Amino acid sequence: MKCSHCNRQAVYYQRHSGRHLCKKHFIYDFEKRVRYAVKKYRMIESGDKIAIALSGGKDSVALTFALDRLYGERKDVEFVAITIDEGIKGYRPPTVEIAREITSQLGIEHHIVSFKENFGMALDEMVKLGDKKPCTYCGVFRKYLLNRTARELGATKLATAHNLDDETQTILLNFLQADIERLARLVPQRVQKGLVMRIKPFREIYEKEVVVYCLLFDLPMDMNECPYSYFPVRAAIRDFLYDFENKYPGRKYSVMRSFETLIPCLKEMFPQIDLNACEKCGEPTPKRVCQACVLREELERAKEQIR
Amino acid sequence: MKCSHCNRQAVYYQRHSGRHLCKKHFIYDFEKRVRYAVKKYRMIESGDKIAIALSGGKDSVALTFALDRLYGERKDVEFVAITIDEGIKGYRPPTVEIAREITSQLGIEHHIVSFKENFGMALDEMVKLGDKKPCTYCGVFRKYLLNRTARELGATKLATAHNLDDETQTILLNFLQADIERLARLVPQRVQKGLVMRIKPFREIYEKEVVVYCLLFDLPMDMNECPYSYFPVRAAIRDFLYDFENKYPGRKYSVMRSFETLIPCLKEMFPQIDLNACEKCGEPTPKRVCQACVLREELERAKEQIR
Repeated sequence: MKCSHCNRQAVYYQRHSGRHLCKKHFIYDFEKRVRYAVKKYRMIESGDKIAIALSGGKDSVALTFALDRLYGERKDVEFVAITIDEGIKGYRPPTVEIAREITSQLGIEHHIVSFKENFGMALDEMVKLGDKKPCTYCGVFRKYLLNRTARELGATKLATAHNLDDETQTILLNFLQADIERLARLVPQRVQKGLVMRIKPFREIYEKEVVVYCLLFDLPMDMNECPYSYFPVRAAIRDFLYDFENKYPGRKYSVMRSFETLIPCLKEMFPQIDLNACEKCGEPTPKRVCQACVLREELERAKEQIR
Repeated sequence: MKCSHCNRQAVYYQRHSGRHLCKKHFIYDFEKRVRYAVKKYRMIESGDKIAIALSGGKDSVALTFALDRLYGERKDVEFVAITIDEGIKGYRPPTVEIAREITSQLGIEHHIVSFKENFGMALDEMVKLGDKKPCTYCGVFRKYLLNRTARELGATKLATAHNLDDETQTILLNFLQADIERLARLVPQRVQKGLVMRIKPFREIYEKEVVVYCLLFDLPMDMNECPYSYFPVRAAIRDFLYDFENKYPGRKYSVMRSFETLIPCLKEMFPQIDLNACEKCGEPTPKRVCQACVLREELERAKEQIR
């Protein structure tokens, strides 16, 4: 099959646009949509120091590579990568290695921050000690370390590799759970004191396009799933959206557009509140003590009881 | 199994509340939610003349029966039923008969209005003549006749039998299609000149509960589906919501609550516009000529070409 734009061999059929794309035009189109999202939400501005949340999985590797390709030459923008090592035996070490390799190849400053060093135990230990789900510990502590490290490094933005599939799943999940407040948290460019602003340059990119992008640039791809991963509700929504998109290509964009239409309302309904400094650790929190400190103390008590 | 409220035999297990209900408590609970919805959105007020859109299918029969049971004794409220006979051979005649029976039993004034008499042809003929989908003709002409007849009868409200399943499907459909304007049209109690206000007393009732209500009162139930019915996108959403509700009971209520949370926004984003009187027929329309007149003229032209 020929490319819809030139005489070359197509490597990808883009269902939502009905176009066949050769390698060159696939990359052009992919990166155009990254630049479009970045521009639309002013994700990258002059003077920015962007911390990239780089797990070493396919999405964040592609993000690091793409941001470097598109903005790496700019003198007024700086990139740094942060890898959180949660301590998940068998699963995390290979991706930490990938993160090390890609940042070294691209010449991007790289920081590895571990649960073990910061909270005294790896996620594997937390799971054995505590009564919460693994994703609770991981979600709270990972976000905590990403934000704190980014801020300490002087980063003005924190880039995550959430793609169109991730975002639309979360949008629909919150809508179906009647959690409009959580839906409002997805509004881009929200500023809160102490929180480094999150940016999502892949928000207009399908997950499978990320895979193709990795393949075309021969980027290291770890496709393993976290052994603790357990989100049955999200999985149901993911599968529905997958089928729906399959039958009616482009519907994930429709979900994104619906959400975007509601943004002015969501901002009005849920104005940003000022965060407090946690009484224990000083990190930002809407409460008196941050969730990371609450969980850490719970785990420490559990550890002492065992002794 | 015993009723969760008394010693009687349960006839229904209400998954979203985890309760088993006997006949008496099922009816009490069902009607309580009808009264709740009616009160919440002031659907029925003193002095109202309510036109019930009564197709003769299970939902509208249950609605007519329930409204009569709950509000029939009130001196300050009047009910009248309107049945639209689209002219669908084999499908519509039995339900028109059911509509005649139930209104006669309840002593409710009943008006049957047909496509044939008003537009010169039955839906069956339109489908053969025109190039649009059956649901296009049916949707436009049915709403047209319902509104015009209700207004001519002096009705202040037009009650339709849309239930929780219908409403949540439409909400999700519009959200997934990025049609937030159409989502805004679902906001209850919208007033527009020339349009009789729509009310949906069953908006908090699951479809299967309507079936049980019909069974318990031995109401005539026609469960046939329209032979023209063809909504593949809606069917995909219906099936997903069915599975999702099945796995996580109560989620249809969540969808309704999400929508309701957004109502103030939707009203602000899409304020009601004044409608024009159609240049051809005088009925309300946002354009110069109403959609019913456009379709009617198309069909008349098609008919003449055949002669």
